[in-house]
Amino acid sequence: MDIERALKELRRRRPLVHNITNFVVMNTTANVLLAIGASPVMAHAIEELEEMINIADSVVINIGTLDESWVESMIHAVKIANEYEKPVILDPVGAGATRYRTSTALKLIEIGDIYILRGNYSEIKSLIGEKGRTRGVDSISSGEDAKDVAVKASEMFNTTAVVTGKVDYVSNGKKCYAIENGTPMLAWVTGTGCMLTSIMGAFSAVASPLDAAIASLLTFEIAAEKAEEEAPYPGSFHMKLYDWLYRIDEELIRKRKKVREIEP
Amino acid sequence: MDIERALKELRRRRPLVHNITNFVVMNTTANVLLAIGASPVMAHAIEELEEMINIADSVVINIGTLDESWVESMIHAVKIANEYEKPVILDPVGAGATRYRTSTALKLIEIGDIYILRGNYSEIKSLIGEKGRTRGVDSISSGEDAKDVAVKASEMFNTTAVVTGKVDYVSNGKKCYAIENGTPMLAWVTGTGCMLTSIMGAFSAVASPLDAAIASLLTFEIAAEKAEEEAPYPGSFHMKLYDWLYRIDEELIRKRKKVREIEP
Amino acid sequence: MDIERALKELRRRRPLVHNITNFVVMNTTANVLLAIGASPVMAHAIEELEEMINIADSVVINIGTLDESWVESMIHAVKIANEYEKPVILDPVGAGATRYRTSTALKLIEIGDIYILRGNYSEIKSLIGEKGRTRGVDSISSGEDAKDVAVKASEMFNTTAVVTGKVDYVSNGKKCYAIENGTPMLAWVTGTGCMLTSIMGAFSAVASPLDAAIASLLTFEIAAEKAEEEAPYPGSFHMKLYDWLYRIDEELIRKRKKVREIEP
Repeated sequence: MDIERALKELRRRRPLVHNITNFVVMNTTANVLLAIGASPVMAHAIEELEEMINIADSVVINIGTLDESWVESMIHAVKIANEYEKPVILDPVGAGATRYRTSTALKLIEIGDIYILRGNYSEIKSLIGEKGRTRGVDSISSGEDAKDVAVKASEMFNTTAVVTGKVDYVSNGKKCYAIENGTPMLAWVTGTGCMLTSIMGAFSAVASPLDAAIASLLTFEIAAEKAEEEAPYPGSFHMKLYDWLYRIDEELIRKRKKVREIEP
Repeated sequence: MDIERALKELRRRRPLVHNITNFVVMNTTANVLLAIGASPVMAHAIEELEEMINIADSVVINIGTLDESWVESMIHAVKIANEYEKPVILDPVGAGATRYRTSTALKLIEIGDIYILRGNYSEIKSLIGEKGRTRGVDSISSGEDAKDVAVKASEMFNTTAVVTGKVDYVSNGKKCYAIENGTPMLAWVTGTGCMLTSIMGAFSAVASPLDAAIASLLTFEIAAEKAEEEAPYPGSFHMKLYDWLYRIDEELIRKRKKVREIEP
Repeated sequence: MDIERALKELRRRRPLVHNITNFVVMNTTANVLLAIGASPVMAHAIEELEEMINIADSVVINIGTLDESWVESMIHAVKIANEYEKPVILDPVGAGATRYRTSTALKLIEIGDIYILRGNYSEIKSLIGEKGRTRGVDSISSGEDAKDVAVKASEMFNTTAVVTGKVDYVSNGKKCYAIENGTPMLAWVTGTGCMLTSIMGAFSAVASPLDAAIASLLTFEIAAEKAEEEAPYPGSFHMKLYDWLYRIDEELIRKRKKVREIEP
């Protein structure tokens, strides 16, 4: 699929994205999904997971404020989504910061198929390290290393892995892409990584993992560029981000996109 | 009571609205209540429900992100509110999407008196259908049908029922009103239905169910019209919505209101 | 430490502030911490508290939407933070409104050292009254009384107590300060008190309790003054508040600050 056309298809399909996510971003990820043209639903009760996932087009799992009962819901959701063949997108928020987060993320990966795994450098690296039992606390990313982490995660977990940062790397093990859109202002608003992950949930309803990941990165980060041009401070920027997710179109993406295929 | 004057009375009384609501809209409904001139409180622990409801002027129950322990709190809250004669406003978010939501909403209606029941067409219709065991999955609303759903729900549940949509219908079984204010932009921000329901909690402290429902619809939807005129994109619109809930006055409502009484 | 320089030091250190807070303000307090230059994390699972507090620079406890399992987490967090010598900032939201909130706040104070205790007049007064078993329901604050409440709380709980209102009072028992910055518009947005408390968490990583409390009040309230000058309505004001927390600098604080030392 032509990456830019995925956005048109998303808006035509208006996919229902089921989120089991953290308390911090429930409102903002719902608003991001609406702005881009998808339909969000949040539900975590075991009693209703199967029915909700059955009508959903994809499932986003985000471990940002986990506890025992939510982890149980997440595990159920991954299993059900796999059974119903709905794409699962996983955001291992804070993996590496505590063993509880690292092990929960690894457990979710272990029990099911993950369509896209999206995290920052430290998070994805901790998942690889823990798995291989080779690394302790992580240092700061440098460019090439982040790419290697994405490639290794995609191979180790048999998924499409996205490592976001100054440059974003997407890999499915065979192919690898680098994206250089976005603005540092994204780091001044909470949950922008979670927003991006939820958008991947929307695109996953209309595209392959690789295409969905790249389309999400381009759409979200180019919208952020436009928002930052209009509003260079975090509160106003945050509000304009929704405006531009609503306004962005194929033409704008085509003009601004900075994506290149690289060697895995 | 003169509908437009209800807003003045609300602001004079500054009612305390107790909310047991969903995680997605806790912040935004609190801000909506403040902007309109009410005072919000959120509390769900069984241990404090009775004391909180005792000092509150009304109780808003919203099942948007329910689970077992929250459902238990909601049941307690309805019983206590009835005992203390505080109006209960119910928003059956997602009723019809899962049996858990439908049955929880019906249970809350069954155990207590509901001052106002507010939902969209699918939600209210599913409550009627489940109760009468006559209907399966719902189709999309068409105008007259939505009115019938409001009337039937009001009769079946002995309450004032509000079905919101392009045209909103309010019925207490004897009288029926249609309201045609608002803007499609409301559908691009999460929880605007929940916001409206919480405002009904505020007006319920100063008006009859019918008047409170109509006053809330007019106030919220005319504020939304003004917000949309200033900011036609969802992020900016969302922010301006609070501005206009704060700025709206009787004069503006009188000039803009599109409400008519119709046959039930 | 020079109060104005604390902000520079905060931005240099970029402290990690661990929050166990209420559902209403999770997003907004995270955004406030980012805007001011700190790094927020939200985590409440017993399983990860020790590791998270170990890497954090301070711990903010806010009882705004408590229940049994969250209270348990808060108790653990205070104990662990004391053990690791991380400052604990306590916001007893709603103390006095229900016995559950009052007793929970008192329990947290009893089991550990609190670096800063921040509340409004009714909240802090209820903690003193309950402790001394001398007072029932509170009346509205008048100036001098609020100061006495701050001083008494600081002595009774061996902490730095902050009572916010039209005039804010800060006392550590030996010294006392009055701050008169801010704008009434802060009362039209939910959780602005919680935002202020979370900022105290950030300043506590770089300053003494007294300096951290005063620096937080000045920074937050002067940012609010600037926001209100640009946007006199609650939605726009709210957004501009983040902008100005990001933009505020030592020079602006020095020019605008209204702080004076008074007799305890």
